[in-house]
Amino acid sequence: MFDRRKYRAKDKPGSATAQQPRGRLLQLQRLKRAVAQTSPVTGEVMPAGGEFRKHEDEDRSFHGSRLRMNPNVVKAQYAVRGEIVNRAKIVSQEVAQGKHPFDTVVWCNIGNPQKVGQQPITFIRQLLSLCEYPQLLDNPAVTQLFPSDVCERARALIADVPGGTGSYSESPGVPALRRMVAEAVQRRDGGCKCDPEDIYLLDGASAGVHLMMRLLLRPAENDAMLVPIPQYPLYSATLALYGGSLVPYYLDEDQAWGLNIDELKKALAEARRKGQCVRAIAVINPGNPTGQCLSYENQVDIIKLCAEEDLVLIADEVYQENVYASSKKFTSFKKVATETGLAYKFPIVSLHSTSKGFIGECGRRGGFMEMIGFPDAARDQIFKLASINLCPNISGQIATSLMMNPPQEGEPSYELYMKEKTGILESLKRRATTLVSSLNKLEGVTCNEAEGALYAFPRIRLPARAVEAAAEQGKSPDGFYCMEMLMNTGIVVVPGSGFGQKDGTYHFRTTFLPSESEIGSVIERLSKFHADFLKKYS
Amino acid sequence: MFDRRKYRAKDKPGSATAQQPRGRLLQLQRLKRAVAQTSPVTGEVMPAGGEFRKHEDEDRSFHGSRLRMNPNVVKAQYAVRGEIVNRAKIVSQEVAQGKHPFDTVVWCNIGNPQKVGQQPITFIRQLLSLCEYPQLLDNPAVTQLFPSDVCERARALIADVPGGTGSYSESPGVPALRRMVAEAVQRRDGGCKCDPEDIYLLDGASAGVHLMMRLLLRPAENDAMLVPIPQYPLYSATLALYGGSLVPYYLDEDQAWGLNIDELKKALAEARRKGQCVRAIAVINPGNPTGQCLSYENQVDIIKLCAEEDLVLIADEVYQENVYASSKKFTSFKKVATETGLAYKFPIVSLHSTSKGFIGECGRRGGFMEMIGFPDAARDQIFKLASINLCPNISGQIATSLMMNPPQEGEPSYELYMKEKTGILESLKRRATTLVSSLNKLEGVTCNEAEGALYAFPRIRLPARAVEAAAEQGKSPDGFYCMEMLMNTGIVVVPGSGFGQKDGTYHFRTTFLPSESEIGSVIERLSKFHADFLKKYS
Repeated sequence: MFDRRKYRAKDKPGSATAQQPRGRLLQLQRLKRAVAQTSPVTGEVMPAGGEFRKHEDEDRSFHGSRLRMNPNVVKAQYAVRGEIVNRAKIVSQEVAQGKHPFDTVVWCNIGNPQKVGQQPITFIRQLLSLCEYPQLLDNPAVTQLFPSDVCERARALIADVPGGTGSYSESPGVPALRRMVAEAVQRRDGGCKCDPEDIYLLDGASAGVHLMMRLLLRPAENDAMLVPIPQYPLYSATLALYGGSLVPYYLDEDQAWGLNIDELKKALAEARRKGQCVRAIAVINPGNPTGQCLSYENQVDIIKLCAEEDLVLIADEVYQENVYASSKKFTSFKKVATETGLAYKFPIVSLHSTSKGFIGECGRRGGFMEMIGFPDAARDQIFKLASINLCPNISGQIATSLMMNPPQEGEPSYELYMKEKTGILESLKRRATTLVSSLNKLEGVTCNEAEGALYAFPRIRLPARAVEAAAEQGKSPDGFYCMEMLMNTGIVVVPGSGFGQKDGTYHFRTTFLPSESEIGSVIERLSKFHADFLKKYS
Repeated sequence: MFDRRKYRAKDKPGSATAQQPRGRLLQLQRLKRAVAQTSPVTGEVMPAGGEFRKHEDEDRSFHGSRLRMNPNVVKAQYAVRGEIVNRAKIVSQEVAQGKHPFDTVVWCNIGNPQKVGQQPITFIRQLLSLCEYPQLLDNPAVTQLFPSDVCERARALIADVPGGTGSYSESPGVPALRRMVAEAVQRRDGGCKCDPEDIYLLDGASAGVHLMMRLLLRPAENDAMLVPIPQYPLYSATLALYGGSLVPYYLDEDQAWGLNIDELKKALAEARRKGQCVRAIAVINPGNPTGQCLSYENQVDIIKLCAEEDLVLIADEVYQENVYASSKKFTSFKKVATETGLAYKFPIVSLHSTSKGFIGECGRRGGFMEMIGFPDAARDQIFKLASINLCPNISGQIATSLMMNPPQEGEPSYELYMKEKTGILESLKRRATTLVSSLNKLEGVTCNEAEGALYAFPRIRLPARAVEAAAEQGKSPDGFYCMEMLMNTGIVVVPGSGFGQKDGTYHFRTTFLPSESEIGSVIERLSKFHADFLKKYS
């Protein structure tokens, strides 16, 4: 239990921790309150009970201790940075004081590679560095610092981005960068035409999801969206925020998280029977948290369904560079639609991001969407929405264009680039394999292969007593399991309930991002915890 | 009139402009359609009439040429990048072909300093450059490239930002950077305590406005917000997007755009009489487009009103570094609230940004908000909203912390920093004075002093025949005037109707950002146009 008196004592002048900023205390208080509040079972928020914050040395009160808030906001949940993560933050501050049976917290809750040791791609960082401070190019020492192709590309970028990284660009993005992205998309898709006008650069793919949700979901019209279960909870969260309903279509765990088109059609029909107006379908390929790569046939089925049923296809393809299964490959929905003869026949928005793949530039907030088949009236509204936000950050736009236009063979940066790329991808593949096979060794745990993305999503079978204990604490069984995992091992994962899962099944999502030197110890700790947990609750 | 045949002829293979990307044609088509669509008079959108885009070489049609869209999106307007700007883009492409009686388009529609020649602050760019590519610090040549304090600060930043610019940070921002910002805010406000926990870093101040709108405006509750007229149209646009109503309070042009607290109370009372639930008041200080700096008394009045009337105060203070009138100075609402004894007694959110001031880092998308007096339940929801968007871009976070913590006297970078800062601010002041006095010389034009910000907002008195001509074209009189200005001079300004103004008055907003060498010619062209316009329509 959180004991406030312990902290007050430490804050006394002269005590060893008197330096602890008061803000830290308030942060801990607020986090504790936040932990108490959200129910991972129902997604409902249990209000803080009218408490309000006080400074230690000020009498602060105000007549309204409540603030009337948008219920859509209160309803929205985002487990990737939810209850378990909030507790983990407190734990990570306490660990140094020896309060826990482990030395470090291991953050396996979020795909944030550079936070856990993955190195950025040199080529990209050299270019961004030069774009921030172009004067470097005029310095004679520059040839010692950067290869010639980097200097050349930097000069081209500086010419292409008028006003540089500090200037607002056109709202859909710098025209030259949109062109570069479009040309790259065309190459990627084996020549399927890509119009730069269909490319909007974004502050991360999430910004594209928000835009589409905002555009499509009409207040008071019972609008809904088909979303895969399990899903990346940005979809459920934004649906809640924008007042839409989530219509789940279940991926089949027994078929390597494959998609069954009949399941999709059934979900659609059921929603319509309930009076919902289904506007779009989100497809995450490769999947998150599941990692599966859709088969070509699945993609054709989805495209045909959307064309027939007047659905917008939201193709979340941010993991397109993370495919590990040798029998699988990524094909964009744009390409499949083109080959099916249905491209431009109905709206498709394809999303990509700088955050994943092997460049892992999460904090950059970069990405793009390609939009085809939208009527002009919609394109005008999308343009206007982009205008209201002025423009995506330029550094992210540049990173996006570089991601899509890496060094070519023969160029000075090529060798290092390929070494870094291959190193990262092969390491990801090794860690994926290691982690998944280790999880499959645990009692009652089955884990599908991580064909792609950055996560393992094992299914856990929990003893009845554990399920009861969870219920007593008002937690979901997998939320309970994950919290116990955190408190016993320091490993932070996200319970399956945060992503959605078939009723009566439990999962958790873990990244396989801990370094290769660390991952062995992570697996060891996890395995021991699991065995102990089963023993305790059997 | 737009003649499509001209473009097709040019696209014939072998023709001189056959290289013109097809996308350009579609862009022009779409822009023209966009121009026809939005009415600056009513703010309503005239639909495109069900047209849809076709590629030149593909037969594209689909069964739905309409896409049902959120009416709040359709309703929202943002004139800073609206109709006139869309036309100006077309014009800027045509100018090279000699189609217009001027050589260049001059973009005076948006506060985007680095696009029009303002140089970034060296100190900031050197640091960002090093943060992007820290390996530079290990290179022996680094001391030739960067002053020692920059190298030292870079090392500190690299230590403070775990995972660097490519890693997601905590959702409210990197803790060390929040601390740095809080300490700076405390210094700025003469010691008024600032808790780092109350500082959230943002992807630009706009992100903070969106967050507050989303939090406060409840669907179907007739929620409203007091907004100054004239205002920066982000407020009207976001109110429309989030389903709230705008309650105008008029600034007094005859009193140097001053605020009359009785006017404010009247507007509040009137809104309530109409059954609106007024949730907040937005105050822009220094003002945009008006540039006025509020008096201390005005600020006290506003604070007292909010505390009494249960209003959230949204203090948009992004121009706090742009104060030119020697008799005026910026005082933060936080400071005034503290001195009035009302700090923490009701919710205040104060916004700042890297986009303005003298650093002008618009494309960076950086900024922060300080939130005080919000109940914990609201703080938890705000935290959750920030989590759903993961984090603000790290480069912007770093720039924000540097903006608030510049070089100090005695440090190697100090002299250059002060030279650049003073140079920019004094030049802005000179241009402000020059422009305003020149506008005041024009017949029928009066322009209040630009006490702050980056804009002049002159009032124009138009002949009756001009007003008629405007009506015939379905334009507002000042929209008509501004379009004529564009087509005759290439100067792009924003009509007052985009910001709101007293009925029967007309204005336009122009930046004073064109360089000092250019601004003379801009004034000349504008003056000539104005005289010709009056002559034509008298």
